[in-house]
Amino acid sequence: MQIDEEVAKLLALKAQLGDDGKTQFVLKTPKGTRDYNPKQMAIREKVFNTIIRCFKRHGAETIDTPVFELKDFDIAGQYDAMIPDAECLKIVHEILNELDLGDFRIKVNDRRILDGMFAVCGVPDDKFRTICSTVDKLDKMSWEDVKKEMVNEKGLSEEAADQIGEYVSMQGGMDLAERLLQDHKMSQSKQACAGLSDIKLLFKYLQLFHVTDKVVFDLSLARGLDYYTGVIYEAVLTQASAVSAANEAQNCANAEESVSVGSVAGGGRYDGLVGMFDPKGRRVPCVGVSIGIERIFSIMEQKAEASPEKVRTTEVQIMVASAQKNLLEERLQLISELWNAGIKAEVMYKKNPKLLSQLQYCEEAGIPLVAILGEQELKDGVVKLRVVATREEVDISRADLISEIKRRTEA
Amino acid sequence: MQIDEEVAKLLALKAQLGDDGKTQFVLKTPKGTRDYNPKQMAIREKVFNTIIRCFKRHGAETIDTPVFELKDFDIAGQYDAMIPDAECLKIVHEILNELDLGDFRIKVNDRRILDGMFAVCGVPDDKFRTICSTVDKLDKMSWEDVKKEMVNEKGLSEEAADQIGEYVSMQGGMDLAERLLQDHKMSQSKQACAGLSDIKLLFKYLQLFHVTDKVVFDLSLARGLDYYTGVIYEAVLTQASAVSAANEAQNCANAEESVSVGSVAGGGRYDGLVGMFDPKGRRVPCVGVSIGIERIFSIMEQKAEASPEKVRTTEVQIMVASAQKNLLEERLQLISELWNAGIKAEVMYKKNPKLLSQLQYCEEAGIPLVAILGEQELKDGVVKLRVVATREEVDISRADLISEIKRRTEA
Repeated sequence: MQIDEEVAKLLALKAQLGDDGKTQFVLKTPKGTRDYNPKQMAIREKVFNTIIRCFKRHGAETIDTPVFELKDFDIAGQYDAMIPDAECLKIVHEILNELDLGDFRIKVNDRRILDGMFAVCGVPDDKFRTICSTVDKLDKMSWEDVKKEMVNEKGLSEEAADQIGEYVSMQGGMDLAERLLQDHKMSQSKQACAGLSDIKLLFKYLQLFHVTDKVVFDLSLARGLDYYTGVIYEAVLTQASAVSAANEAQNCANAEESVSVGSVAGGGRYDGLVGMFDPKGRRVPCVGVSIGIERIFSIMEQKAEASPEKVRTTEVQIMVASAQKNLLEERLQLISELWNAGIKAEVMYKKNPKLLSQLQYCEEAGIPLVAILGEQELKDGVVKLRVVATREEVDISRADLISEIKRRTEA
Repeated sequence: MQIDEEVAKLLALKAQLGDDGKTQFVLKTPKGTRDYNPKQMAIREKVFNTIIRCFKRHGAETIDTPVFELKDFDIAGQYDAMIPDAECLKIVHEILNELDLGDFRIKVNDRRILDGMFAVCGVPDDKFRTICSTVDKLDKMSWEDVKKEMVNEKGLSEEAADQIGEYVSMQGGMDLAERLLQDHKMSQSKQACAGLSDIKLLFKYLQLFHVTDKVVFDLSLARGLDYYTGVIYEAVLTQASAVSAANEAQNCANAEESVSVGSVAGGGRYDGLVGMFDPKGRRVPCVGVSIGIERIFSIMEQKAEASPEKVRTTEVQIMVASAQKNLLEERLQLISELWNAGIKAEVMYKKNPKLLSQLQYCEEAGIPLVAILGEQELKDGVVKLRVVATREEVDISRADLISEIKRRTEA
């Protein structure tokens, strides 16, 4: 699969591992925004915040809105290149987990394994690229059709195509990399062996990161061969499906009861491509990730449409309400205390709003809590805290109110 | 003072109080960004986050990056208009407090008080606007020069000018509004009385919000007369100054040991101006605030330059370090635990980095904590937690590590 040009590459992470002993990650987002309604914006903001929070957790540095950079430190001398690669996959895993888009897989392969595989299967050097782009169609076409294209359109021998067919049906983990290192054909390619050793190392780190549940070493992954030079990966959402038979027809060894519903992230190692950024013009090895943020937005919007839950467009935690007339000043005093304690709070601008209309507003706006003030509550030094969803009400002393609100609204 | 066109009006808050019973606030930021270095971006991000956090605390709704909206609710029937005005001033107070730019004052006045004052001082109707723009120069010119301009250039009688001079030297709070309501001249103007009553009400709410320490009712404030129709306000930074004599020369009744170093926020009520937005074409009363974000950036950058403290460009809380060789896997396992717990953590990508270089990196990057793993710590099930600033080291059990890091890095 070529790098999906459709997907707005809103966030791209480049990890630059220089032989001059520098490391940096850069995340890029395109300029320009469109106009969205409040619900769409709430979803967009949630996605952005999740991604930015994740990047910051991994040491990201803001260098320009909306560009982030994960700060470099000197790693002169020996370093282990697969560590940042593993961190990129961990970042994708964290983001997709947190966004709760549904089940996903992160397919991993390596440019060198693909090239080595083509070589040992007897693909002529000058056909690597064109055969690779046919392999890349395996997620949309059956193996039979892919083979037909290789043989009939691209002039590959049937024998070579069959050998490729065997390899590209393979999926697994570290075990598969180990098996292929022993494979009588694959082991003839130095390039393939280098790639397979790196895949092994990658999986070792991924195990330490506890993310191997979602990562699959998949020899049919063939994205961006013009671009990437080492490890490549692509995250796809999967969903329970009745078409697993179709999967099996594609010779998937690990055929699952799931089907890909589209790529949402991808990346890989592209050593040398950003050599132009190195002041001395040297080749700078990089790993990167681009997040298909527009596709993620659409999926989140569809999910929100289908869900009975309302998308909240504000983050207000509590409404300060009154049960009787002439309590405007008491409401303003209380809401000021809440604002000063960092609590997101709203109050009706009417002098004497009806309690019912205040409660109805909370239900409509999805505000989870109401602090109700009345003569009795003021006399007792308490606030009636109402949980909007359950309509449960409990008196809380003014002294405990802030910690109680924080406790009840903690994410 | 006219609305400062120099200051990029990056955030504008409009509170729309419709007679159709709707309320909404809209914050606008201009499109387009320039390129900044990581330190500038860290400062910009801090400013943005402070402002956005404040807006969200007050119920802001994102309608477009970077536009926010504070959601409307139905307030059909009677409502008290000064409440959102007071909330705007509270918002400005919170933002300037949190940004810690130095001492500030929020000057408040009312278009109707200015108009009434000009009327009772004998300014002809058709000279209101031009005389107002001369009053607006009082923060840059002495009263003598302002008077000269009024009399010599604008043809105002000396008597009228002197009467204006008396009023515009007045500063105070609710007490001043009360005094002026009794003033034999001012009380002749219905307009002025309406404005003064609203200023009284505003101060009542500001007292409930505990922000009157910074708010001054200042009759010389004359911003945006073409634009605003009611309450107007402007926040200025003040600084201890040896030129208080100059202030006194300007007839400041409440002359303080401080001098304005520039407007950083302003706004007011502009009823009717956005009538075009109302579907029925009715006049929609609004209050708004615009934050002089570019000026705030410059001030923050100057402060950062002058401060011995480094501006941090990442938010990393802890470095996972090793004291001996061959602990890469243990470091990766630990940092994965920290990431999963939401802690911002970094690790060196080298297999065997020197402890000293790991500690040096933390000092340079301003990372406050180091979690050091060694053979002994692994045996004991602990991590050596080092506080970079004090070099204090303490063993923390693995079970307590996350809560200990959170406790020590809480803002």
